[in-house]
Amino acid sequence: MAETPRPLYRGSALQRLLSPQSVALVGASANPQALGGRTLANLAGFGGRLYPVNAKYPELAGRICYPSVAALPEAPDCVVLAVPKEGIEALLRDCAARGAGAVIILASGYAETGVPADAADQQRLVAIAAQHDLRLVGPNCVGVANQVHGLHAAFAEFSPTTLISGNRIGLVAQSGALGLGLSHAAERGASVAQVLTCGNSCDVDVADYVAWLATEASCDAIALAFEGLAVPRHLEEAARLAAHHGKRIAAIKLAVSAAGQDAARFHTHTRTGSATEWQELCARTGMVRVTRIEALMETAAFLAKHRGPLAPGAAIISGSGGTAILAVDAAARYGVATPQPAAATVARLRAAIPPFGAARNPCDATAQATRHPQSLLDCAQAMLADPAYGALVIPWGRAQPHSLMDGLGALAQASGKPVCLVWMSQRQEGPLAEAAERHPHIALFRSLDSCFDALGQVQRAGSGAAAQVAPAR
Amino acid sequence: MAETPRPLYRGSALQRLLSPQSVALVGASANPQALGGRTLANLAGFGGRLYPVNAKYPELAGRICYPSVAALPEAPDCVVLAVPKEGIEALLRDCAARGAGAVIILASGYAETGVPADAADQQRLVAIAAQHDLRLVGPNCVGVANQVHGLHAAFAEFSPTTLISGNRIGLVAQSGALGLGLSHAAERGASVAQVLTCGNSCDVDVADYVAWLATEASCDAIALAFEGLAVPRHLEEAARLAAHHGKRIAAIKLAVSAAGQDAARFHTHTRTGSATEWQELCARTGMVRVTRIEALMETAAFLAKHRGPLAPGAAIISGSGGTAILAVDAAARYGVATPQPAAATVARLRAAIPPFGAARNPCDATAQATRHPQSLLDCAQAMLADPAYGALVIPWGRAQPHSLMDGLGALAQASGKPVCLVWMSQRQEGPLAEAAERHPHIALFRSLDSCFDALGQVQRAGSGAAAQVAPAR
Repeated sequence: MAETPRPLYRGSALQRLLSPQSVALVGASANPQALGGRTLANLAGFGGRLYPVNAKYPELAGRICYPSVAALPEAPDCVVLAVPKEGIEALLRDCAARGAGAVIILASGYAETGVPADAADQQRLVAIAAQHDLRLVGPNCVGVANQVHGLHAAFAEFSPTTLISGNRIGLVAQSGALGLGLSHAAERGASVAQVLTCGNSCDVDVADYVAWLATEASCDAIALAFEGLAVPRHLEEAARLAAHHGKRIAAIKLAVSAAGQDAARFHTHTRTGSATEWQELCARTGMVRVTRIEALMETAAFLAKHRGPLAPGAAIISGSGGTAILAVDAAARYGVATPQPAAATVARLRAAIPPFGAARNPCDATAQATRHPQSLLDCAQAMLADPAYGALVIPWGRAQPHSLMDGLGALAQASGKPVCLVWMSQRQEGPLAEAAERHPHIALFRSLDSCFDALGQVQRAGSGAAAQVAPAR
Repeated sequence: MAETPRPLYRGSALQRLLSPQSVALVGASANPQALGGRTLANLAGFGGRLYPVNAKYPELAGRICYPSVAALPEAPDCVVLAVPKEGIEALLRDCAARGAGAVIILASGYAETGVPADAADQQRLVAIAAQHDLRLVGPNCVGVANQVHGLHAAFAEFSPTTLISGNRIGLVAQSGALGLGLSHAAERGASVAQVLTCGNSCDVDVADYVAWLATEASCDAIALAFEGLAVPRHLEEAARLAAHHGKRIAAIKLAVSAAGQDAARFHTHTRTGSATEWQELCARTGMVRVTRIEALMETAAFLAKHRGPLAPGAAIISGSGGTAILAVDAAARYGVATPQPAAATVARLRAAIPPFGAARNPCDATAQATRHPQSLLDCAQAMLADPAYGALVIPWGRAQPHSLMDGLGALAQASGKPVCLVWMSQRQEGPLAEAAERHPHIALFRSLDSCFDALGQVQRAGSGAAAQVAPAR
């Protein structure tokens, strides 16, 4: 550890990895269940030149299949090694010899096992890559995707997505499983432009990915989930680079608890840093710190849509008094001011809602607003015009109709202030969710917080001592 | 306020309201959009005798329609007044004269307006009801439902549900809109046996509902959302009654912030109490205190399924190292211990998972567990057998198949310990969610916490002062 760490990869250092013209897949297979078969299927949409490599097949999925890396018709920008650990080291040398720009190693059994011999195996891969200026991703990773090029160099099935300018999220996840789960945000409409995982991060790590996204035109905001870094200041440098290019980052750090840091030692074996260091880093760099993983993608989507400054104060409009109260309670928890509107605004609200509503902040527009969308639009326009508010929040019992969303969107655009919808319904369908709910011996939660909060309180209640109840969070 | 408050309604005091043999609907209408038409449609499944009342119709929806309350063929247990405020007082006197047991008033325009004359109107209703020992629900409420009798005496469309013994939740919500949103948990499989709202709570309030549910056989746990109470100690009495009958309560209190208490004054005008009083009440009574509304129903479902004591310690098994770390971090936030397993348990885990997994707590069973369910079941059995754990938590990337849920359920049942699934995927489908995500000027959140956390941090970042960043929660 005495040696000087390499600098953060910047500029074009990851270009051949993440914007490749050519990709080779070693271990490509005709078996759709095999690692090499799943990865081949995922790569089918790649917009560049794709080279399956496997001596067993003369051709695969309608393409020429090459017997070896040496036999490839050009130096590949990026190579995916979809083979077991045993073959990796020799193949990496072959890739270096053929002039590859980057190699993605999916195989497990390296530093993450905690066995010194496995860590030494990983270290030899790093040395080979450094010697040939070759970027390494992994090992013990699921791969990367860059929707812009139709690149899906991964065995995991990230959800495909349609990219919408101004909405595009670059997702960086050290853990492949988390990256996969988070990428499913695409299925509810999020524009997930890149999914970049790095597993053991023996060479390329999350900071390098953030630095690449900082200057990548197809990315409007960054979502980051990670455990730790070999060189913590690289993330600070990358975050400042992103800020310099007007891109915000929503970030969640795993292993902030002592038990979590302990568990991380058994996982990727990277340095995790303390919760305080993490908070301070976010404060210094303007990264938006996310605590609950389920909030990461929606936070990033918000940051992608609203890249300008945001003035203090939030106005709240709801169709129910109870929901309005919940909303100001939540605002107070997070230090968001909810000041009262100016007299002129109050007059406009009063004209738009029934007398039993509340022409103030929070504005209870009453159930009338659900039946008469113009009432809600009038309130929204009045609140957005008031300089007391930098944003408008509308907690609502269920999905708004398209016409109302369009109306609110037009007001948001005209005012330059964000309009945030918060859907409060418990509608979450699906036969398996139903099955879990109905199972008498299985409890289904949709949030870790809910789960552990309930467990902790019931456990303490069972011990019979009110004094043991934890202080309020 | 000098007079002695009435005692908590207990025993059979709410029986005619919530388990009626006969229901009259005044203002019943053939117009499906009208208040009286919507309520009539909702009441169609009532298992008892239903009497529409409206002088305009000789018959309605295939039933005799009565010209007046006085003309009803029997003293109705419960009457719903689906008419505007103007007619209410006279009709209430008619109901009292005809021997009704309870009257539900949907109309708004009473104490919630903050106008003294409206409050006086409400007070006269209370006096009439007290004089005739008649229970009043509302005004300014959406009604009540009791699935056990097919009773849906409400204009709001609560979701219908199939009741499963051991899973049944009694939902008590002061706010009708929140009650409606929360009742949608039924659409994802929850057994919502009752939905009891009370709006202005001029007579019957949430404490009375909790006391009724405490002794109601069709309820296994109670979900409670409320702003405040006229007599706060009634809730303590009701909660103790529920505990005495072995029923747990998941509860969220609105208006815990100063701004929230302010907003509550403009809503139901009940006394809200401080956040500290609320915490202390939960500690004294064993109510599980919920902070985020979206956690209320899943917490109540858990409490319905697991009514016995719960020993300390949680075991965690996941298919990914990153997810495992997130889970112990969350456990630490909520004070749930995650001790290491006994040596015998470690040996069993080691035999069930690949060498690059983690045979400890949290157990990273690796992606193999997704492909080979038996591996997960073996780990679960080992952890549940270890006395270090009172519960097993399984955070998972997506829905488990039925066979695996059945296997885990059998292990939970055999061990007497709860198995909690936490689904971590971002899959949340639907065309309107997609439309909101895609709209460039609308940000969609699915949680108030996420929304205000992001707003607050971006606002502070915009002010440029790191020192202004709020302390960690």
